[in-house]
Amino acid sequence: MGLIEVTLGIEIGSTNTTFGLVDITGKCYVQGKINSRTNESPELLFERLFAKFKKIHRENSDKYELLGIGIGAPSANYYKGTIEFSSNLNWTYVNIVDLVKTYYDLPIVLTNDANAAALGEMKFGAARGMKNFIQLTLSKGFGSGIVVDGNLVYGHDGFAGEIGHTIVVKNGRNCGCGRQGCLETYVSTAGLIRTYFELLSQLNEVSVLKVFPTEELTSKLIYNAAINGDRLALTAFERTGQILGETLANAVAYLSPQAIILSEGIAETGDLLVKPTKHYMELNMLNLFKNKVEILVSALNEGDSAILGASALVWHEIQKERKYQLRV
Amino acid sequence: MGLIEVTLGIEIGSTNTTFGLVDITGKCYVQGKINSRTNESPELLFERLFAKFKKIHRENSDKYELLGIGIGAPSANYYKGTIEFSSNLNWTYVNIVDLVKTYYDLPIVLTNDANAAALGEMKFGAARGMKNFIQLTLSKGFGSGIVVDGNLVYGHDGFAGEIGHTIVVKNGRNCGCGRQGCLETYVSTAGLIRTYFELLSQLNEVSVLKVFPTEELTSKLIYNAAINGDRLALTAFERTGQILGETLANAVAYLSPQAIILSEGIAETGDLLVKPTKHYMELNMLNLFKNKVEILVSALNEGDSAILGASALVWHEIQKERKYQLRV
Repeated sequence: MGLIEVTLGIEIGSTNTTFGLVDITGKCYVQGKINSRTNESPELLFERLFAKFKKIHRENSDKYELLGIGIGAPSANYYKGTIEFSSNLNWTYVNIVDLVKTYYDLPIVLTNDANAAALGEMKFGAARGMKNFIQLTLSKGFGSGIVVDGNLVYGHDGFAGEIGHTIVVKNGRNCGCGRQGCLETYVSTAGLIRTYFELLSQLNEVSVLKVFPTEELTSKLIYNAAINGDRLALTAFERTGQILGETLANAVAYLSPQAIILSEGIAETGDLLVKPTKHYMELNMLNLFKNKVEILVSALNEGDSAILGASALVWHEIQKERKYQLRV
Repeated sequence: MGLIEVTLGIEIGSTNTTFGLVDITGKCYVQGKINSRTNESPELLFERLFAKFKKIHRENSDKYELLGIGIGAPSANYYKGTIEFSSNLNWTYVNIVDLVKTYYDLPIVLTNDANAAALGEMKFGAARGMKNFIQLTLSKGFGSGIVVDGNLVYGHDGFAGEIGHTIVVKNGRNCGCGRQGCLETYVSTAGLIRTYFELLSQLNEVSVLKVFPTEELTSKLIYNAAINGDRLALTAFERTGQILGETLANAVAYLSPQAIILSEGIAETGDLLVKPTKHYMELNMLNLFKNKVEILVSALNEGDSAILGASALVWHEIQKERKYQLRV
């Protein structure tokens, strides 16, 4: 029996680092994770990671042919293979690709988590078959990956695709980046909660959420209230969708994508967010683009999506090379 | 003696259609133009165009090898080779590539004028050697062409790169597109004049321009007043640069370009526009991108730039094919 060709996807997060073997159809074979440790060096992290991987992988290793390794991580630079000034990981500068090469002499590709998610959607998810789309992850922060003509947009320095840090409200909310009015401060789980507070200040409505101490309020609680008809919670989603929709009308004017894929966090609330987003996107869109651009929710299982994205990253490069070889 | 390889660049405008032969270094050999006629069909326009071209070209035609034809035109679709609903030309739907093929069976490429200008800058102008940049034409309207990884961004439907129709001021100025607050209504020759009127309403300053009937005010007059120290005129440029700079800070977050190239119209005022634009771009930029992105004024002679751009369009495709052949 032939070997199953797989790539190893690794997603380095601030609480966990997850990994798994993924074949060309997006099937995961071997999965595992290790907990992140505060102030751990990248060398030690990868030592633990590969020890765990080898242990899990050992009994089945004769079934698989490992073709490459894809890694998604915050503050990662695709061109240089480095992670730079990662506040989440407390690393100032690490060449991840060189480090991983000491373990496996294979094609190794690194990019940030949002870009990896975009390729995961393109290879295995809602953007399958698309060549031009935008992927947005709406969790605690706002991540984005832009795909143009079948490839990720990295830009001149490798850091393109920071739509979460476009300023959408002049003199708006304070952002962790030190500026004001970034999209991320409105459209994210944290942004939804801030919008709820803003509505408390503006409207005089009853709300089932008023019994909670403000520090205990979560996007999940606002979601539950909204599906039970709570007016304040519903308005919080409406406002969030409005600001996202207005921004997307502009994003479409830049890039004319076939679709915009939303994943994680408040994207999982489905129509509660998608309906107002779609409404305000169409309302603000240049005629030329009206009724052309789909808004879709990720089709990937959230548990696997990070691994699938990281794995898709290197599958993408392998397939490009094979296509080139074929053409030759 | 060998033949000089050239492409024919054609720029279809609402007042003139210009053409010229251009070699790989950007040298123009044969140039001409015909006036546009109201309600003329595309068939008749090209008949006159090629008659004129052949007449000029005849005596030297044995010196050149024509490799392809590039055409820049408003409302042009690269994918389909068509011009659709062009209000300037009064054509509803024309397949330009098919039409031109009946004259010359060569590679023929069509795109909108702003995209052609971007390729002109990449092959022959200020963006030479760059793979990621944004080209903006700031004449009566606001055109833009986005280059990512050495290629124009066309998007899913061929109409990407409409930065002039991103909404930058909520409930802002009425735009010809039917919406409000588009960048084009602020950053263009017409936008500069509107800003001057806005300042008349807001500030209580003397201005040498107050002697002119408002309908006679031009961006050139405001420029002349500004370089002579007129406070209102200077403030009009400052405001224009501010709104452009703020928008570019966001554009950089999307695309992380190496440079932004400004051409035509108010771009020709040089520092008057570039200084405030640069200032407000840096002021509003995410830290990650600060002091990385150049703002440059077009290096092309305005008279030739349309022809160079259209010609670059097909040179670009020819070079890609040759590169591929070489690799094979």
